Amino acid sequence: MTLYVGVAGASEPDPELIPLAEALGGWLAGSGAVVVCGGGAGVMTAVCRGAREAGGVTVGILPDLDRSAANPYLTVALPTGLGEGRNFLLVRSSDALVAVGGGFGTLSEIALALRTGVPVIGLATWELSLSGAPVDPFRRTEDPELAAQLAIEAASERIRELS
Amino acid sequence: MTLYVGVAGASEPDPELIPLAEALGGWLAGSGAVVVCGGGAGVMTAVCRGAREAGGVTVGILPDLDRSAANPYLTVALPTGLGEGRNFLLVRSSDALVAVGGGFGTLSEIALALRTGVPVIGLATWELSLSGAPVDPFRRTEDPELAAQLAIEAASERIRELS
Amino acid sequence: MTLYVGVAGASEPDPELIPLAEALGGWLAGSGAVVVCGGGAGVMTAVCRGAREAGGVTVGILPDLDRSAANPYLTVALPTGLGEGRNFLLVRSSDALVAVGGGFGTLSEIALALRTGVPVIGLATWELSLSGAPVDPFRRTEDPELAAQLAIEAASERIRELS
Amino acid sequence: MTLYVGVAGASEPDPELIPLAEALGGWLAGSGAVVVCGGGAGVMTAVCRGAREAGGVTVGILPDLDRSAANPYLTVALPTGLGEGRNFLLVRSSDALVAVGGGFGTLSEIALALRTGVPVIGLATWELSLSGAPVDPFRRTEDPELAAQLAIEAASERIRELS
Repeated sequence: MTLYVGVAGASEPDPELIPLAEALGGWLAGSGAVVVCGGGAGVMTAVCRGAREAGGVTVGILPDLDRSAANPYLTVALPTGLGEGRNFLLVRSSDALVAVGGGFGTLSEIALALRTGVPVIGLATWELSLSGAPVDPFRRTEDPELAAQLAIEAASERIRELS
Repeated sequence: MTLYVGVAGASEPDPELIPLAEALGGWLAGSGAVVVCGGGAGVMTAVCRGAREAGGVTVGILPDLDRSAANPYLTVALPTGLGEGRNFLLVRSSDALVAVGGGFGTLSEIALALRTGVPVIGLATWELSLSGAPVDPFRRTEDPELAAQLAIEAASERIRELS
Repeated sequence: MTLYVGVAGASEPDPELIPLAEALGGWLAGSGAVVVCGGGAGVMTAVCRGAREAGGVTVGILPDLDRSAANPYLTVALPTGLGEGRNFLLVRSSDALVAVGGGFGTLSEIALALRTGVPVIGLATWELSLSGAPVDPFRRTEDPELAAQLAIEAASERIRELS
Repeated sequence: MTLYVGVAGASEPDPELIPLAEALGGWLAGSGAVVVCGGGAGVMTAVCRGAREAGGVTVGILPDLDRSAANPYLTVALPTGLGEGRNFLLVRSSDALVAVGGGFGTLSEIALALRTGVPVIGLATWELSLSGAPVDPFRRTEDPELAAQLAIEAASERIRELS
């Protein structure tokens, strides 16, 4: 059974996230997972480049009506014309989600994943609190290899539970 | 020009949010705004009840394929079959968004609004931080009258900017 | 139980459809149905004008990201940013669908309604055939009063079946 | 530039369409096109089997929330949870669309493609008329090799026009 791991991350991220995302893509592809992302620049390009260099398959669920803004490391590039509405499709396509860095689009994907039972792994991403009390509903790490491993495990477990 | 104010909130909220949401609905309707919400229980029922009792118009963008779970205070109930995917439609229908309380669906709506330029007013809702540093991109209050007033002002300003 | 009747029709229709659509809107509103449409010009404007003049409620599910192209006879105007993708939301919001005239958007709504079990009434609209043999899966009429009556009956029956 | 050709067709088609769809998939893949479809049974399985046996890449945009109903010949299977709403995503992902056989889902995809400027090739599919006069806005053939060739040409031309 092929696992699909979504990777959420901004098109103009903190530059230090780029090597993390690229390493993450490599580890995910090395585990045989299909990498699904928004198909754009920044974190999305880096994770796809890493995955393709490791021989993996990458899917970009694009916000636009055409493929002109797709990054060059996509096996499959799918225009949706949904704008940020495509974020919920990314979550629906993912057996687990790795959220990389800040960005409000990334936050929307974390929230939709948590709401719909898709496991989330955080890599240098948002922290949440309510009335001053931390709420921490997902695993975090700063290590892309560990993030990939946790995502693969969580995706496998979710597939088992659903079947 | 009619203003549309979205209200995000959970179906099973902290009980103390119910009177806040009901008052919010009353103040919004009293200002002539159409109240848009997810159409369900909890915060959604309370804000609609408040709005209808003040003579307002309420719209529910339902996650389901039919109207069986719609609350009874909706002027218009629209099934979408999108599940949590309907959250982005709620944001797109809103000139401003008031986020009430916690809940991951609410968090997704805050994030989508921030991402797409819809002004957000927080009423006892999520706090965000990155790498331990608070990020606070929207106004907050505990007072439903002030929340309604801030939302109306922000919605008016957004309409002016777009036209 | 409020019935919702969708009306599909083009923004630049054959001019003779305009009075038919306006009369249809009047008859639907007179029966207490909420009229749901794409919210634009042409057939959509005419059916909403007729419905509002009869004291009815009208909903426009707009293809755009804002309300600038909404017709002035909408009780509620909902931007979706989905373009023609909003057609399936129109069908999902409708207990029955009246298709008025030609237009490929209208054809898509007829097809989605037939596919998902929403009853269709045709008013001067598309005829279908396969391998030269007519396929006629919905009622047709040239009379807007009869179209409204058939739509109300079909919507009522569908609601009874679903509940 | 990779071309993406959508193939629309029913899950329970006329059995004689199966070898046509399989041959179509082979010719499309042989031309280097990615085949996009609804990911299910019938025509969708056949076109994917043909494409994969010719070494091609296939994408299924699934109506469901999970991959349990995906056919086994998909390179990439994407659950959407949109039901028939996924039909418009199929059209948006396609540089050209081949419509195979009858089925109302197929009709919705033909209509959405015609409405949004995606070229359509018909293979034993719906005929349309208005007021008794045939309307024939797309090319037709009974030959899967010719259908593939026409689709590739139309997709290439569309890409040139958009860029």
